[in-house]
Amino acid sequence: MALRVRRLSTQDPNFKTDFKALLEWSVREDQAVVERVKEVLEAVKVRGDAAVVELTQELDRNLAKCARDLEIVPAAMEAAWERLPEGDRESLRYAADRVRAYHEKQIQASFEHEDELGNKLGTRFTSLRRVGVYVPGGRAAYPSTVLMTVIPAQVAKVGEIVVTVPAIDGEIDDTILAALHLVGIQQAFAVGGAQAIGALAFGTETIPRVDKVVGPGGAWVAAAKKLVFGPVGIESLAGPSEVLIVGDGSVEPQWVAWDLLSQAEHDEHAQAILISPSTTYIDSVASCLEHQLAASPRRAIAQESLETRGALIHSCDLDEAVVLSNEVAPEHMQLAVQEPRNYLAQVEHTGAVFLGAYSGEVLGDYVAGPSHVLPTFGTARYASVLSVQDFMKRTSVIEISEHGAQTLGRVAGNLADMEGLYAHAQAARIRVKDYDHNL
Amino acid sequence: MALRVRRLSTQDPNFKTDFKALLEWSVREDQAVVERVKEVLEAVKVRGDAAVVELTQELDRNLAKCARDLEIVPAAMEAAWERLPEGDRESLRYAADRVRAYHEKQIQASFEHEDELGNKLGTRFTSLRRVGVYVPGGRAAYPSTVLMTVIPAQVAKVGEIVVTVPAIDGEIDDTILAALHLVGIQQAFAVGGAQAIGALAFGTETIPRVDKVVGPGGAWVAAAKKLVFGPVGIESLAGPSEVLIVGDGSVEPQWVAWDLLSQAEHDEHAQAILISPSTTYIDSVASCLEHQLAASPRRAIAQESLETRGALIHSCDLDEAVVLSNEVAPEHMQLAVQEPRNYLAQVEHTGAVFLGAYSGEVLGDYVAGPSHVLPTFGTARYASVLSVQDFMKRTSVIEISEHGAQTLGRVAGNLADMEGLYAHAQAARIRVKDYDHNL
Repeated sequence: MALRVRRLSTQDPNFKTDFKALLEWSVREDQAVVERVKEVLEAVKVRGDAAVVELTQELDRNLAKCARDLEIVPAAMEAAWERLPEGDRESLRYAADRVRAYHEKQIQASFEHEDELGNKLGTRFTSLRRVGVYVPGGRAAYPSTVLMTVIPAQVAKVGEIVVTVPAIDGEIDDTILAALHLVGIQQAFAVGGAQAIGALAFGTETIPRVDKVVGPGGAWVAAAKKLVFGPVGIESLAGPSEVLIVGDGSVEPQWVAWDLLSQAEHDEHAQAILISPSTTYIDSVASCLEHQLAASPRRAIAQESLETRGALIHSCDLDEAVVLSNEVAPEHMQLAVQEPRNYLAQVEHTGAVFLGAYSGEVLGDYVAGPSHVLPTFGTARYASVLSVQDFMKRTSVIEISEHGAQTLGRVAGNLADMEGLYAHAQAARIRVKDYDHNL
Repeated sequence: MALRVRRLSTQDPNFKTDFKALLEWSVREDQAVVERVKEVLEAVKVRGDAAVVELTQELDRNLAKCARDLEIVPAAMEAAWERLPEGDRESLRYAADRVRAYHEKQIQASFEHEDELGNKLGTRFTSLRRVGVYVPGGRAAYPSTVLMTVIPAQVAKVGEIVVTVPAIDGEIDDTILAALHLVGIQQAFAVGGAQAIGALAFGTETIPRVDKVVGPGGAWVAAAKKLVFGPVGIESLAGPSEVLIVGDGSVEPQWVAWDLLSQAEHDEHAQAILISPSTTYIDSVASCLEHQLAASPRRAIAQESLETRGALIHSCDLDEAVVLSNEVAPEHMQLAVQEPRNYLAQVEHTGAVFLGAYSGEVLGDYVAGPSHVLPTFGTARYASVLSVQDFMKRTSVIEISEHGAQTLGRVAGNLADMEGLYAHAQAARIRVKDYDHNL
């Protein structure tokens, strides 16, 4: 079985064009999907539970007859937990503990300071009241996503967390249910796709309306999140997963090949890129990819991903490789080099950076601690890894002193005049005691 | 002239329905506007400068013949600055200094810690490379918005800041140009509305593509920001401005009336609400409103706002007033009470809270320090005041030690097995030295 992964070289006169083509992705926002998702959302908004049940029957082949049938009760989660082998429970517990410990370090304290006029100014952090977490199902069951979304919300002390996860053919994997039990979820519903996002955004008779919806999903979920955004918050619009590895040749080619393959096996649209100044190294990795792919039960997906969206790129040096990585702004970036810290300062845009031979992205996927919900498809240019901050908001606290109002009221009055806002100027100056005298 | 502001009482059996009606706003997402904005964005995406120029001629009545005519050169900003009276320049400078000083306190340092296995885990903050700032024009000229958007971006050390502001009839107010000079903007374009958002999001031959677009605007701008969101970041979708004042009767009714009026004069859709347990106080404020409105040059707008969207609400006590405020999640909230700190902990959802008699919202609009770009229309349930954080992003830093990989690799391998991800399991276990022996 031949594996044909695109090879590029920055020395090639066509490099810029080829590199740009590599980063385009036509499936990004499919208008047919958007139109169908609009209908789904409208149905859920108008008809509530009835629409959710119908859509779930149709799209998930779930035989639920009414919305109550879609509730996932805590007892079902506990039973699944009990059914898991102890080793699996231990792994989930270990990962959850690490994820929790990491996120606890992200908690920010509200702060306030007093200025020279005796005014107190600050920022107050408060938790979101109710959050919806979308856990994808279908192609694969991802209990890790339960940990990576719910735990940051819990650390942020979100009041209520509502989980939705599709039950394709009426089934939810035990590992998902067990993960829900482990993190102590009280409200969960077996609903997926755009109908789940609609139910969380608008609320139905059974599913409560939330303030923000988070969690990864496919094209339908992404389209639905974008459409409901405004009345309800969202954390990002997830696209297919990506890894970009910068390698100097010091890390075993086999290791790097597994790293690329673990990205590629997610989804045929996933993107795995290696950039290295060593063609020998690129050749070795390419040969490992072909060899290792042969044994993979997810070969078809991984091969399609590598052949359509993957690339092995020869750069002049490591600095150039990092410059290219910044242009991609990949979800995950591995600095598979001997002295990764020498290059870290140059890394501008990526959701998560993995340093050195032992930091395979897979360890971040499951157990390192930071969330694996990361900005994809170049959005790392402006967006961030999911964190405790996504479940809190900042409120400015402004306490102007009587003394402070004397100066600030004058200045604000003048600025209001400049903007032609009469009542603004009055509201500012009425707080200035001797305004008329010293004008 | 009679002013008819809606009066509600929480004791009224219909209160819940009336209160809910008060918070609905039909204009929220006008599909006709969305459709027209889609066309504008498509035109800008496909035809670039040519479309921007045509749309600007048509919509802003601007006679610019080519995109170069839309550039606002720094010399023009400086000339406007020189033309301003010294008092105005001083006010702008004073406000800018306070806004900068406040935002400098928001800078967060990247951090890292080492866990018990010798793994290093951290969060790195990096600046956005290029940001677009939309400054509204038209109905009023808001130099304050230049300060409140550009300065947080500058404190975050954003690489490039591109400003757009409409030149209606070809004119931009000197105060705006002067504010651009004061903060040292190098790239600005006289483009407004959806065409400005499209130009910033897609880039044209003349206007550079940015990573994130921020700044308030009307319905067209909000619709455009929502549509371009994904490939480009946005900070929020702004709706009309709002203030909710909780009053115990201790603050001069005149002051509170000016505060309400300064919100109402922005826009006929703006919302100004007073909640108080004292009907006498409500009566006094109502009579001040009527009296003070009579003298206002922006009377028509303020009156329409107060009569269609304003309310004076009688509550049982201050605690109930704060509960109602949390349901509104107003952009601005004033605790116009004697002991505001006694109620602060109960305030859950608002963009900015103003404590005590001297903290009129207007001082926050111009000069207190925090940005006046705030979440509107209930989005304070999940969204925050614009801040330095909006111009930075967080990247997880993950450096797994050889020792750490022995444990984490095993656990990740097991979790990958549970998820049926073969290459993930391989990528994890290949980093475990004696994996085969101790399985």
